Amino acid sequence: MPEIDGARLLADLRRLAQFGRYETGVHRPTYSPEDVAARHWLAARFAEAGLLPVIDGIGNVIGRDMRARRRLLVGSHAESQPRGGWLDGALGVVYALELARAFAADPDCAGLGIEAVAWADEEGHFGNMLGSRSFTGQIGEDELAAAVSRDGVPLAEALAAAGFADRPRERYEPSRYIGYLEAHIEQGDTLDSSGQRLGIVDAIVGIWNYRVCCIGQQNHAGTTQMARRKDAGVALVRLATAIHDGFSGIAGPRTVWTIGRILLDPNAPSIIPGRAEMNVQFRDTDPARLAALDAALRRLVAAADAAGPCRVTLEAQRRVEPRAMDAGFQDLIEAAAERHAPGAHRRMPSGAGHDAQILSQVMPAAMLFIPSLNGISHHWAEDTREDDIVLGARVFADAALAILRAAA
Amino acid sequence: MPEIDGARLLADLRRLAQFGRYETGVHRPTYSPEDVAARHWLAARFAEAGLLPVIDGIGNVIGRDMRARRRLLVGSHAESQPRGGWLDGALGVVYALELARAFAADPDCAGLGIEAVAWADEEGHFGNMLGSRSFTGQIGEDELAAAVSRDGVPLAEALAAAGFADRPRERYEPSRYIGYLEAHIEQGDTLDSSGQRLGIVDAIVGIWNYRVCCIGQQNHAGTTQMARRKDAGVALVRLATAIHDGFSGIAGPRTVWTIGRILLDPNAPSIIPGRAEMNVQFRDTDPARLAALDAALRRLVAAADAAGPCRVTLEAQRRVEPRAMDAGFQDLIEAAAERHAPGAHRRMPSGAGHDAQILSQVMPAAMLFIPSLNGISHHWAEDTREDDIVLGARVFADAALAILRAAA
Repeated sequence: MPEIDGARLLADLRRLAQFGRYETGVHRPTYSPEDVAARHWLAARFAEAGLLPVIDGIGNVIGRDMRARRRLLVGSHAESQPRGGWLDGALGVVYALELARAFAADPDCAGLGIEAVAWADEEGHFGNMLGSRSFTGQIGEDELAAAVSRDGVPLAEALAAAGFADRPRERYEPSRYIGYLEAHIEQGDTLDSSGQRLGIVDAIVGIWNYRVCCIGQQNHAGTTQMARRKDAGVALVRLATAIHDGFSGIAGPRTVWTIGRILLDPNAPSIIPGRAEMNVQFRDTDPARLAALDAALRRLVAAADAAGPCRVTLEAQRRVEPRAMDAGFQDLIEAAAERHAPGAHRRMPSGAGHDAQILSQVMPAAMLFIPSLNGISHHWAEDTREDDIVLGARVFADAALAILRAAA
Repeated sequence: MPEIDGARLLADLRRLAQFGRYETGVHRPTYSPEDVAARHWLAARFAEAGLLPVIDGIGNVIGRDMRARRRLLVGSHAESQPRGGWLDGALGVVYALELARAFAADPDCAGLGIEAVAWADEEGHFGNMLGSRSFTGQIGEDELAAAVSRDGVPLAEALAAAGFADRPRERYEPSRYIGYLEAHIEQGDTLDSSGQRLGIVDAIVGIWNYRVCCIGQQNHAGTTQMARRKDAGVALVRLATAIHDGFSGIAGPRTVWTIGRILLDPNAPSIIPGRAEMNVQFRDTDPARLAALDAALRRLVAAADAAGPCRVTLEAQRRVEPRAMDAGFQDLIEAAAERHAPGAHRRMPSGAGHDAQILSQVMPAAMLFIPSLNGISHHWAEDTREDDIVLGARVFADAALAILRAAA
């Protein structure tokens, strides 16, 4: 059994959290000076672990094992959300580093290699999972050329400032890996509230996004009689209420939906809104359920448009399909979890997106979750108990070994 | 009968619209260089009409009649809404100028005076009807000291830049006027859609304003199960729908209500809103109806708060009470309207606020409306037919004479 050094693992996580430290979390947007420094630091740690490190033209940090005969690609992303948590992404990267060290030190693992990776921009500061999509050939040059940060900085400019612009973008070799593993904090409270310590991800949810626009007529809030109004704000709140009611009747036990963004125009107390828009998003692992939610949304929008007096339009936006994780990998992770923490683990979907869903399109992939205290995520207060962090690494190493051996 | 010169009246209106011209309207915010130039131009016109002009320390332009024995104060505001119409405010000011000229030229009007006034900031760029409230002693030094434009410019700084800072603020003398008259475009489509040409305002609506806040818990839109959410956006759209439904059952024929502003926080598609707020406003001339709407709103907010899972709070904001116009003045304006346009006039409330509601608190006051084409207002496309503009001035002059004579 490759031996996890819990103290070393925690020390590396704490050191990585110094790059962009913010309160008890980190503020480390992709390609920020702190993110670039963190990637160079990771490359040096990968080298110390006996891996051949490369930072590629999109910022991915890849540590290659040049001696192994069978390899697993293991990792997660290195950047953080704005004022985000210290473990989101970082945990899976440092797990990969620790596994590489443990495998290299264990004679029983001879010939079995862990290649560690720190993906760039899973968090979407410039795009959507840029690093893993670049590595697996799922991104076009046109998308890269058009990519801009939330602050309006072009991707090319940010890569140049980071010193990555002139490097080639690495591509995976299909025969090189038997699969991909990613560990991550859960980000919800399913584990924490049930007292369980490990989650074996069965699928990553699909995420379907829409924009709904209500087009009315801007007018004076005092002199325009009610019967004459075409109030886009009224149309929007009525439709939003109908969507919440309608989706409740269709939802499965793990379906989630969100109207997270509403804009009225001109958004002034004494002016009847001439235009209103909202973003509607729903997530589920079941393609049939996603299709049913889509159909319900289209019916509700059409009914609102037909009812008048405002026009109501629906625009389908980014759609991520659900991805099942590899069944054989899941079984081996579950068996490892049972050996280390009998009864304290569960199969569960991931409600958040992860690089594993990108990798799963080109190789078998699986994920391990550890608890998020109180389910807090995307906030600097995100945290996990140290013993759960160390337990997760032990299960992850044990599972990786089993997966590598099973591939013989 | 004082004789209105229609060509001169229209020429002055067109000349005034050159200050800050924007498309077919004007962009002339209070104390902007264009507004200051317009006020100096008006002061010169008042002087030509035989009035003694003064621009005071808040920007009011007042033309005093030093010979008359009985005086009416007549006017409106000189600034415009951002990219607003050419007649909103300007019409009533140029009517006052034209009446002053017509009265001065008519021997039958000897001893009867029109004092013209162009109020400052009725449109609320820095506050709420600053000029007329200053003139009638309804504003405190603390409010003036704290006043800031929508762009963050302090009032004191704007007055200094305008050259008005060192001037005294004029106050009305209670014995000087028998009353106040104001002409204005309707801003709605009641006259235009019914083919009528003149409106005699019976009352100016009260305007009650509120802010509603929903306090939930910000969280991840993928990993937070529906049952665990405290989505402030859901609370807001459900409550807004309930308000629209509830108010429909209480409203009178001229009641209007508006939710013109909604803010979600952080307003991102993949984040459950932790906080949401909206502004609720309603208007009516009937104090009992206003009280009933207030009670309904309080019931709905309390019910939403009790239902959970979000906390919902209500904050009463600025409240303007309805103001009845002087009944005797209304009768005399109506009689004048019937002489010039038999059957083509109506009594009606004003759904918008006007300086007349401020003046009505210290002297008898009344208003005359002329049509707004298609009810368009607070937009550069606002317009009125020329023959309606001239007819309005003739009725206004006739009514002013009748009011001055009746006061004998």
